[in-house]
Formats: sequence, C-alpha cells, structure tokens
Amino acid sequence: MKFKVNSTEFEKVLSKVIPAVPTRTPMSVLENLAIEIKDSLMTISGSDLEIVLRASLQVEADSDISILTPAKLLYDVIKNLQDTALDITISDGFKLQIKTRNGEYSVAGLDHAQYPQIPDFPKEENNPFSIAIKGTELKNILEKTVYIISKEEVRAALRGVLFDFSQDGMRFVATDGHRLVNYLKRDLAFEDAAQYVVPEKALIILTKVLEDHEVKISFSGSFVSFVLPGIELIGRLITQKYPDYAGVIPLSNEMSLQLNTRELLNTVKRLLPFTSGNLRKIKLFLESDSMQVTAEDMDIGNSAKEMLPCSYSNDPMEIGFNATLLNDLLIHSVEYNELLFKINTPNKAVIIEPVDRKENQELMLLLMPIRLNN
Amino acid sequence: MKFKVNSTEFEKVLSKVIPAVPTRTPMSVLENLAIEIKDSLMTISGSDLEIVLRASLQVEADSDISILTPAKLLYDVIKNLQDTALDITISDGFKLQIKTRNGEYSVAGLDHAQYPQIPDFPKEENNPFSIAIKGTELKNILEKTVYIISKEEVRAALRGVLFDFSQDGMRFVATDGHRLVNYLKRDLAFEDAAQYVVPEKALIILTKVLEDHEVKISFSGSFVSFVLPGIELIGRLITQKYPDYAGVIPLSNEMSLQLNTRELLNTVKRLLPFTSGNLRKIKLFLESDSMQVTAEDMDIGNSAKEMLPCSYSNDPMEIGFNATLLNDLLIHSVEYNELLFKINTPNKAVIIEPVDRKENQELMLLLMPIRLNN
Repeated sequence: MKFKVNSTEFEKVLSKVIPAVPTRTPMSVLENLAIEIKDSLMTISGSDLEIVLRASLQVEADSDISILTPAKLLYDVIKNLQDTALDITISDGFKLQIKTRNGEYSVAGLDHAQYPQIPDFPKEENNPFSIAIKGTELKNILEKTVYIISKEEVRAALRGVLFDFSQDGMRFVATDGHRLVNYLKRDLAFEDAAQYVVPEKALIILTKVLEDHEVKISFSGSFVSFVLPGIELIGRLITQKYPDYAGVIPLSNEMSLQLNTRELLNTVKRLLPFTSGNLRKIKLFLESDSMQVTAEDMDIGNSAKEMLPCSYSNDPMEIGFNATLLNDLLIHSVEYNELLFKINTPNKAVIIEPVDRKENQELMLLLMPIRLNN
Repeated sequence: MKFKVNSTEFEKVLSKVIPAVPTRTPMSVLENLAIEIKDSLMTISGSDLEIVLRASLQVEADSDISILTPAKLLYDVIKNLQDTALDITISDGFKLQIKTRNGEYSVAGLDHAQYPQIPDFPKEENNPFSIAIKGTELKNILEKTVYIISKEEVRAALRGVLFDFSQDGMRFVATDGHRLVNYLKRDLAFEDAAQYVVPEKALIILTKVLEDHEVKISFSGSFVSFVLPGIELIGRLITQKYPDYAGVIPLSNEMSLQLNTRELLNTVKRLLPFTSGNLRKIKLFLESDSMQVTAEDMDIGNSAKEMLPCSYSNDPMEIGFNATLLNDLLIHSVEYNELLFKINTPNKAVIIEPVDRKENQELMLLLMPIRLNN
C-alpha cells in the first residue's frame, strides 16, 4: 500500500496530535499514533485514554489502511525534513517506508488492532448542549479559570472546570476551596440546564492548539468534543457532581475597595519574599483612600510595608490574604485596570470584580481571607 | 550608617554578582552577598568559594561599612522596584532598612566577619600571563570549547579548558577523551610558555556576564581573574597538570573529505532517532563525490539512509561515529560553511577543520570514530 504526502503538511498534522501522546506510560502502545487512511483521507489519532486528539489530511493513496507508528520517532523524522514530497509504502509487516529524494527511512509499526478502544464522541445532530465560540475568546476564558484548579484537590469534581448551561448564559466555574472564579458568557442562553465538568488536562492541551478560529464545543453522555479546523479533541468528562458553588458566594458584602490592579500586583510581588510559612500572609490595612500593605517573616526578622492609594470610605479595617494566591489572581486580572473588592468582615469571603465590565461577560472572583490573630 | 543609591543602578550591579551565589549549599552563609562601602564606593561580592563575582558602584555614603545580606531576598526586592531613589540605613544589629517614597523594607543581615575567606587575586603589575581580548571573541571561543568538557570525567584536569601560552599564540584546548578542540589565537605571542586550566563552572558563569567589551584575563599562582567593565570574576584554577594533548593529534591523516556543514548537520539530526544504545552509531560510506549516511536500531527494526554530496577522491571507505557527538560538534561549527575531515583509517582519530580560515585564528577538532564490526 502506498501514499504520497507533502512533508510540511504532514508535520503540521502530526504537531497537532502529538500533545495527547503520553511520553512515559506503562501502556506503551499509547506511545504510538493511530493512522487510518480511508478514501485518501488520512486521520491520525493520539491518546492517553482520557483525551484523544485527531487530525485529518488529504493524501494520494492507492488503497485504505490502518496502522500504528511510534509517535516520537515519526515526528522527529518528519519535522527535520525540509519541505519535500514523501513517498510512503506500508508493507504487510506493518513497516512504514518513507522515501525522499535523498533519503529512505524505515520505521517499524504495529497492527492497528493492538490499539486500545479510545473515547469516541457520538455523532448526534441537534445536540442541545453545543456552542460555537471564537478560539481567542475560549483561550481567554481558560486562562482566567484553569489556574484556579487545585493540584492537590481530592474531590474529583474540583479537578476540572464546570461548564454550566442555563437561561442566564454559559458559566465557567473553577474553585480550589480558597478561591473561586465564576465567568458568565451572557450572549448564549439555554432552555434546559445542564452541568459538565471538563478535566484540567484536556483544557491545558486544548489551550495549546487553540488559535483564532471558531471552536465547536459539544457534550454528550460522558464526553466532550472540541472541534477546530482540521482537528478534534475528545475528552472524558468528570462524572462526579459539581458542588453547589452558588451557595458559597456571599450577596451582602457591602464595603467596597477600589484599586489599580497593576499597582497592587507590583506591591504584592515586592512583599511576597517577606512572607513566610505556608500561609504567606500579607495584611491590608484599609483607611480612607489609602491602604498600608505589610508582610513580615518573624523567624528571620525581615519585614516590609508599602502605602498604596485606593478608593475606600468605610471604617478602617485590617484584612489578611495569602500573598501567593492574591498574586496569582492579580496576574490573571491585569487586563482590567481597576478592581473592586467587595468585603463583609475580615473573616468572610471577599468578592473581586473588574470595575469596567465587558459586553456580554461577567467575571467574579472569590478569595477567602486569612484570619488575623492580633 | 546611611547611603543613597538608585534602584536601577543597584539592580544592575546585583544582577552581575548573583550568578556566583549558590542556591543550595550546606554552608548557608554563602547565600549572602558581601557588601563593603569604602569612601562611597560600594563593592558587592558573591561566591561559592571556587568563584567570586565582584562588582562596584558609586553611592552617596556617610561612612564606611561591611555587612552580609541575603542575596535572593535583596535582589527580589530591588528588581521589582520601579526606577527610584533608595535611602538605605544599616543599623548596628546588621539590619538593612531600605526606604522608597511609598515603601519600607527591613532585611536582617549578618556580621561581615562570618563570611569565609574567599579567593582573592594578587594585585601584581606586569603579570606576563595576562591578555586583553574582546568580550564577543572570548564568548565565541568559549562556545567552541566548553561544550566538549565531559560531565563524567574523573581526571580533574579535563574538567576545564586549558589556556596554553606559547610563542605561537594562545591556545584554548578541551577534550573528553573521544573528541578534542584546539583553538589557536595567533595575534598574541608569549616569550615564556605556561599552562593554566580554568574549571568549567567559572567559564559558564563568565559566559553569562560577557558582553561586547574588552576583558582582561590574568593568571597568578592558582587563580585566574577576568576583569570586565564594572565587574571582576576570580576563579580557583585546576592545579592538576593537563595531559599532553599535542601527542594525540595525528599529523599524517592524508585522506580528505570536504562537505557542507549544515547539510551534514541536518542529515545527522534526522538519523539520530534511528541510532541506538550508548554508541548511537552512524555510518558514513564514502564514495567518489558522494556519501551514504546510515543508521539502524536493530532491536526495533528501524533504519534510515541518506545520500549527501561531498568532495572525496580516495578509495571507497566506511567510517562510523557517535551521532550525538557528531551532532554536537556540527551544531558548534555552523558558522563555517564547509568542513574538511582529514582521515587516516576508519579506526584512527579524524581531524576536522573549517575550510575557510579566519584571520589569526585556527580551529582544529578531533573526533574518534566508532569501530565498525561488519
């Protein structure tokens, strides 16, 4: 069986699928790519059993075939070739023979039947839980949510981002127990409600292949599918029910503090090395239109304080945060010039929102303070 | 004691010294910077006992002082400040108080007396083994030599680059037993001969601070000094005698093979994944004006071959190399369009030289072939 393909086009398709291929896995057959050619359409899949990346390319083939080839070796050969025509022969012994003008590469493959059953997305029409979104917008939403997923979380449901369909629109929610993000995309609305939790890893891999093009997201049963031009990502969903996040969001935080995002970020960056322990406590002492931010490492005897302008008109108050978490949150919010902190008491959850709303999107962050014992 | 300094200037000096400060060391006092102010000249030193980096900066000081300060903390604070004036107070308790317009940072330091004795370079005038060289030229020489130093070498002398003073000029030599580089800088000549071995680590750190300026290199006793504008690196030398490298360089390699550096590099890159084991054997079959390069991984059954044009007019011959070593060597030689391989027999050392010589410099590489057993 023979087919012809251009090396640059082949490389482009391989580079899209490679991110799903595990590098060290006890199930070594997964280190292969599954290649199928049907009616001169070559479809290449890579998978770790949780996620599948699948991309297609038109080739000139003399018949159909299915085969497995070592992913890393094949990609290493193809990506180092200059743009050239490839003549590929697949023998009965699952051997791939790649010929260029000056070279010949023989790669031992495997029977396609050895590849495990990988997740497949049911092809239904008119799926009610299906949306189309610009790749750049989805990327922005993922950047604002995925970082909040805890690496140490034991509850399976919290190891992903909740995609929450409702009449209000589509919400993207992530939490690690200390903070929560709730991103509402308002220009969508669904008659029926539904909740799906997409695991962190699928979203991280998705981020790598997202570009400025439309993405179609569909949910069905226990799978999600992201369809991009020329490539599809299918992921197994987390089936555990997501906790009732709406119930933990306080509605009566009446004290408000408005500040410049980048100014506070720079202060937190400078004070971070002065915090200590796991708590990494940083204190904000709020006064009329200014605040003092302090940190100290009492064991060593280092300390730091800075004054920052802000807009605050309630009684003076002291509130503490974990500087690492606050730093993270600010880094992911720098596209908003000003932030509004809505505070209740120094021991209750603080709500953080951008001052300038963007059309059709609402971002709400929640951050738990650290109890101050002085 | 008080002094004033600009944060950007302070940061620049700190960034030059930080590379010498060890991050994890049982001798934790070395994680500090030694700061000395004398007649308003601040000198900052960082050291791991083998290497010292020392930089100076004019400040406005009301008296002299010596103190140790935690390197990482101080650098983290200063580098995150925007360009601003700093008022620094050092108290009797070795406490550094840094004041800006909006902030105040208190850093616990240590008595300067706790710092160990660090290498110092004797200030001699008219040192005969002293040269001046452009920073960019030295960087280029180090890039061509340091990579050849073996990480696993047990002979201390081979864990550095030999600086060899002679009437011919100054030679820079490195070897790992399988390959050798001999770089001769001809526009220098010395009446007396001398050999000094500078350890790899000093050269790697030096590379980080080299820019486009003159460097003064001096040797004295068991130390080397590299003086750059505003910064000095002092390193302890390797005192073991360097082996007689000249004796291993063959003089009677009469077969010559000329080829395009980048073409061979690209071929080796493509064939590297097909090599196996520790030997990573790649074979060159030389014929009249062309060569066939092959690799195979017999355990798995992968193989590859390529044809390359070359200039060769001797009897056909087969010679093998370690593809990783050859790849490394070619990567570091791409500034030369064409290379000349001087060959004796397939089992003897091959000499590799650039075809186009540059003025006042001679580069000679030696690579041991791998024995072919077919």
